[in-house]
Amino acid sequence: MGMKIGVYKVAMDSPGDTSKLENLIRNGEIDPEKIIACIGKTEGNGGANDFTRKLATLSYQLMLSRYIGKEQSETIVFVWSGGTEGVLSPHATFFTRNDDEMDELDNNVPGLAVSIQTTADIPAEHIGRMPMVIEVAQAAKKAMTDAGVSHPEQVHYVQVKGPLLTPTHLREAAVSGKELVTKDPNLSKGFARGAMALGVALALGEIQETDLSEEIINKDMSLYSSVASTSAGGEMTNCEVILMANTNKGSGPYSIGHSVLKDAIDTSGICQAIRNAGLDAINIPTVEQQNQIVAVFAKAEASQEIRGWRTTMLSDADIHYERHARAAVGAVISSITGNSGIFVSGGTEHQCPPGHAPIACIVKKNVD
Amino acid sequence: MGMKIGVYKVAMDSPGDTSKLENLIRNGEIDPEKIIACIGKTEGNGGANDFTRKLATLSYQLMLSRYIGKEQSETIVFVWSGGTEGVLSPHATFFTRNDDEMDELDNNVPGLAVSIQTTADIPAEHIGRMPMVIEVAQAAKKAMTDAGVSHPEQVHYVQVKGPLLTPTHLREAAVSGKELVTKDPNLSKGFARGAMALGVALALGEIQETDLSEEIINKDMSLYSSVASTSAGGEMTNCEVILMANTNKGSGPYSIGHSVLKDAIDTSGICQAIRNAGLDAINIPTVEQQNQIVAVFAKAEASQEIRGWRTTMLSDADIHYERHARAAVGAVISSITGNSGIFVSGGTEHQCPPGHAPIACIVKKNVD
Amino acid sequence: MGMKIGVYKVAMDSPGDTSKLENLIRNGEIDPEKIIACIGKTEGNGGANDFTRKLATLSYQLMLSRYIGKEQSETIVFVWSGGTEGVLSPHATFFTRNDDEMDELDNNVPGLAVSIQTTADIPAEHIGRMPMVIEVAQAAKKAMTDAGVSHPEQVHYVQVKGPLLTPTHLREAAVSGKELVTKDPNLSKGFARGAMALGVALALGEIQETDLSEEIINKDMSLYSSVASTSAGGEMTNCEVILMANTNKGSGPYSIGHSVLKDAIDTSGICQAIRNAGLDAINIPTVEQQNQIVAVFAKAEASQEIRGWRTTMLSDADIHYERHARAAVGAVISSITGNSGIFVSGGTEHQCPPGHAPIACIVKKNVD
Amino acid sequence: MGMKIGVYKVAMDSPGDTSKLENLIRNGEIDPEKIIACIGKTEGNGGANDFTRKLATLSYQLMLSRYIGKEQSETIVFVWSGGTEGVLSPHATFFTRNDDEMDELDNNVPGLAVSIQTTADIPAEHIGRMPMVIEVAQAAKKAMTDAGVSHPEQVHYVQVKGPLLTPTHLREAAVSGKELVTKDPNLSKGFARGAMALGVALALGEIQETDLSEEIINKDMSLYSSVASTSAGGEMTNCEVILMANTNKGSGPYSIGHSVLKDAIDTSGICQAIRNAGLDAINIPTVEQQNQIVAVFAKAEASQEIRGWRTTMLSDADIHYERHARAAVGAVISSITGNSGIFVSGGTEHQCPPGHAPIACIVKKNVD
Repeated sequence: MGMKIGVYKVAMDSPGDTSKLENLIRNGEIDPEKIIACIGKTEGNGGANDFTRKLATLSYQLMLSRYIGKEQSETIVFVWSGGTEGVLSPHATFFTRNDDEMDELDNNVPGLAVSIQTTADIPAEHIGRMPMVIEVAQAAKKAMTDAGVSHPEQVHYVQVKGPLLTPTHLREAAVSGKELVTKDPNLSKGFARGAMALGVALALGEIQETDLSEEIINKDMSLYSSVASTSAGGEMTNCEVILMANTNKGSGPYSIGHSVLKDAIDTSGICQAIRNAGLDAINIPTVEQQNQIVAVFAKAEASQEIRGWRTTMLSDADIHYERHARAAVGAVISSITGNSGIFVSGGTEHQCPPGHAPIACIVKKNVD
Repeated sequence: MGMKIGVYKVAMDSPGDTSKLENLIRNGEIDPEKIIACIGKTEGNGGANDFTRKLATLSYQLMLSRYIGKEQSETIVFVWSGGTEGVLSPHATFFTRNDDEMDELDNNVPGLAVSIQTTADIPAEHIGRMPMVIEVAQAAKKAMTDAGVSHPEQVHYVQVKGPLLTPTHLREAAVSGKELVTKDPNLSKGFARGAMALGVALALGEIQETDLSEEIINKDMSLYSSVASTSAGGEMTNCEVILMANTNKGSGPYSIGHSVLKDAIDTSGICQAIRNAGLDAINIPTVEQQNQIVAVFAKAEASQEIRGWRTTMLSDADIHYERHARAAVGAVISSITGNSGIFVSGGTEHQCPPGHAPIACIVKKNVD
Repeated sequence: MGMKIGVYKVAMDSPGDTSKLENLIRNGEIDPEKIIACIGKTEGNGGANDFTRKLATLSYQLMLSRYIGKEQSETIVFVWSGGTEGVLSPHATFFTRNDDEMDELDNNVPGLAVSIQTTADIPAEHIGRMPMVIEVAQAAKKAMTDAGVSHPEQVHYVQVKGPLLTPTHLREAAVSGKELVTKDPNLSKGFARGAMALGVALALGEIQETDLSEEIINKDMSLYSSVASTSAGGEMTNCEVILMANTNKGSGPYSIGHSVLKDAIDTSGICQAIRNAGLDAINIPTVEQQNQIVAVFAKAEASQEIRGWRTTMLSDADIHYERHARAAVGAVISSITGNSGIFVSGGTEHQCPPGHAPIACIVKKNVD
Repeated sequence: MGMKIGVYKVAMDSPGDTSKLENLIRNGEIDPEKIIACIGKTEGNGGANDFTRKLATLSYQLMLSRYIGKEQSETIVFVWSGGTEGVLSPHATFFTRNDDEMDELDNNVPGLAVSIQTTADIPAEHIGRMPMVIEVAQAAKKAMTDAGVSHPEQVHYVQVKGPLLTPTHLREAAVSGKELVTKDPNLSKGFARGAMALGVALALGEIQETDLSEEIINKDMSLYSSVASTSAGGEMTNCEVILMANTNKGSGPYSIGHSVLKDAIDTSGICQAIRNAGLDAINIPTVEQQNQIVAVFAKAEASQEIRGWRTTMLSDADIHYERHARAAVGAVISSITGNSGIFVSGGTEHQCPPGHAPIACIVKKNVD
């Protein structure tokens, strides 16, 4: 009744390049039937007109449908962040889950367990509001059970992807008179991210339902989850939860850890996430340790200044501030891990203390 | 007959902001008569249409001319690099030199010495060619003598700024029939940087005159200086050399070191430059050590890949590859030094082995 | 008691290039003592980090101070718009005014008259509010009198430049408890532009004081001036008004007209402004007529669609929508006038009906 | 033995939006079996990292394969240009051809005829060289015959799309020792465009085979076709020719014309193309005439200056010069035609005299 999780990071020569994954399938290194999720970076601009994410999902679905059929290929959850600024490398990390192979964990060393859960469709009037919080909390609780979580602190990363308000929603609400959280689609993105993060916090007991109300969403930033990473997109109608934890159900060679970045150049936060995942790394890891780091998921936020020195991210009219932030945070993490295939995205509402950013890290455990 | 060098890094709220330096002057912390050079970053795009460098020079000259007169203010050498991508912070590092204050160095601990030298005007037909190499070599040799250099390895940083071919040069050459190194102003920039770097290498004995000929400039990249940092600008008619070395003439509290970055995320190269400057830093420096790091000068180059993983710097039509490179290298250095007032510029012809980038670092020596 | 207005459009090779104007001064074509204003375009990005405007003002002031002294050079009003997208050409249009030369206008043909007026400093708590409206209205009224305006319809262009809320204002207000129109510096820009435009409308009788209240500023867009063009900048402390009208006091060869652009490709609006200025142009002007068009001042606004077809200006994360809008409107106007030295800027609050944009045009009258 | 050509311009809400075409199919307005080609604009950046073109082709192929099968959907020729700067609107113009419906043209009024032809695969060593010229010439000749062209002047637009040199080509050539036209993939794009345009010129008798040799390709720019429009892409292995002409075989309501733009603001060139297509338009067309303009295909080139006034397209490090050029030319054409669904792309080698740009226009003929 356990699960063996596989983690496969593949490079992408373009957002439509699926050849590296297909090679793994053809070589028998990965069983396409077992793929449950993909988290990756594409080389778009990360903005509203970044269509590389859609091209990547479409391309992988088309390729995979030749092996596992159209229907099953569409059950795989794809999470893309656009924007590979600086040294960041376009890539996709695929997760497989094999429930059959599971051996009983006799040595009591917990391993990485992953659970995918989805909510019902979120109607427009619930987006960015308490019902969305509750829906996500329920899905996250299901995921915890499925992953074998016995204590919330076993959970290190909960990626949630859900809907935002689209122009269509706004037009329909104008007709029907339904009240929405905001009339600005861009603002709705932040509300959705915030509500989903609070849902995770609620599921994990980081906050209590009594702490919550419509009014505190994206207002009271002292409420947050330390392990949520949420994103909102116009193509979504419901929420998809990818929960990662170290549990006794997880029988593979991987474990996960997390920490927080206090600013964009916080090397100690990165090192702490690596140690939290199980590597005995003091300061910058050795090359051997770097090779054990399989995946890093982080958020990057622009800031007016870093340790008292002004940055120009937010006043630059040529390059969007998110691109500045990803370039910096991505390079710093890459310099510690020795690998630039790093997942860095933006928007940290209720996912950490204000000004900070969450980071999670999967490592291959030492084999002795 | 020694010199006391002062190093003052000031923030800039905009390319026209000279208030932080003026405050130091008013407070008596810096004697404007002693200022010899300024090396800094401005928040432009770093490209052909970056006019922030000119605004910064003009603004500082105007402010300083109120204290030291127009004529003397125009003798100060200003070296600006445009582009504060990612966490990089707009700033200016001013250097003062006081030849009067010099005490005899009785403890035989060499200190930072700085010498400024200029060449005669370089005619268009010499730009990027052997006569430019020779002119720079002669100026660098004069600077070595002036700085009290007894062994070339005392020299850690030679910043040279000189002319490139402008459209005016090309028009005049078309009329006069003079042959130029190239007809492309943009290409001439690289030739000028390369020739000036070879001039430094020649002065320091890193290469011999017999190694040199017109043909090898920007061709034979096995010839280089390890301490040159060169830049070319359309506003220059001659070359300006700023040479920094640790010598017995240098009586202040600073020393300088250098190293090479093997790629954009080479933390060990950064740490080595810091150690080379005299800090006993293993791995990432402590906060106390970070506070002793006064200035860092580095170059950043775009690359197709980093340790086997593709980057998108060179195929991005939205953000120039130099901006990607500076964002990454600047963030990595800042994460090690704990300060984002870092000088990072581009173009490494004959300034290091191909694919690498030079880095120099000034530290305040331990006071016991 | 009349005035002869001179209009001189000069190209600029860079934001610091003042050579074309200096040539006119040296050739005796323009008397620097008579220069009262400059309206021009610089090749920056037009955003918060566009420092080309400051460089241009500083450079012209420095050059002119050699001819007319520092003090007088600083009385000249400079209005710059950054951003020369598409075919737009960096240039400056200088206005001279000679009150001595004035002949009595015996032929009853009104000519271009220009008056510069300034307000007192606008305290932060008045920016974007009724007191700013009133101040601008008073200055505009003074300018009307000075320019010899007998009927408001003689006025065709009122350029007003004034302060916005800066971070410093916000900090001080937080301490003093003064209430400001907004806490967002970017939003304050629009409030300031709107308040100044309402001031012009009030002076001209386009709206009545009874129409006005704090609440309608940037809310009730049915109130507007048809001839105002306003801009706000962080460097301003008071408002500067440049009023242009055809009056009997105007004795030179120029006249001015205006119209409105209904969308970014409204050729008929452009042609109408040209005809309104006095050229008998049906459809696209002839080359002879194009040569009589001396200056064009227009605003450009981004829009989601043009005549039912979607644009991507507002969803493009790489190029700011103002740059898209200026590129389009600038090219269309240039194609009608045959000259790309066109002044196009952004922000039309209370300067025309919503979705429209104002345009004014100065022509050299037919000499028979 | 004639053909009825249908022309259907559909808007696109995103590069993956195929709903407008699908609506036409469902409504029975367009027979998907008859679609032969699509020429359109997508909202990418138009550069090497513009993946919107691929997404658009993939999305239309997927949608159409549900109606006409995968195989036939892949026979449709898709020509996309990325970049909808300024007012340009993302759209696709689909062409249908019905050979059955053909009536004999009894009134001797020629109508629009379209022929699609393809060449054999072009090996790397032939790309940008004489064999490519010859291959395209042969395909264009076949297209002329197929379209019923009796005189070359009946041909108004020949869109050719073919291969360029990819990094893979270069690697293979390094191994095999095959000599290529250039080692720079970006330069090969221009050589390919030039060679294909010369092929069209040869087929149409605009130049003679004796004029041609390897050496003149992209060198002797006095040789050109007035009706070619060529583009090169890394995804192509052979060349696809879309030839449009007014012939007696063309029985539909459309006719085509062409002209040349002498610069980016050449309204007379645009009007001439419209008249050449059959509309009796003096100067700017009336709204009725604008409604008869069905499609416009133009090229845009950046230039250092327009009629003596400097532009900043080529020195702007933030926005690529092709984007500046498309924004300007697209807006000017849209202002004449009253519609911003205009096809504007770049690269005019051998497609017009140097500095000029070709333009073609399809109109719906007057029905009386």
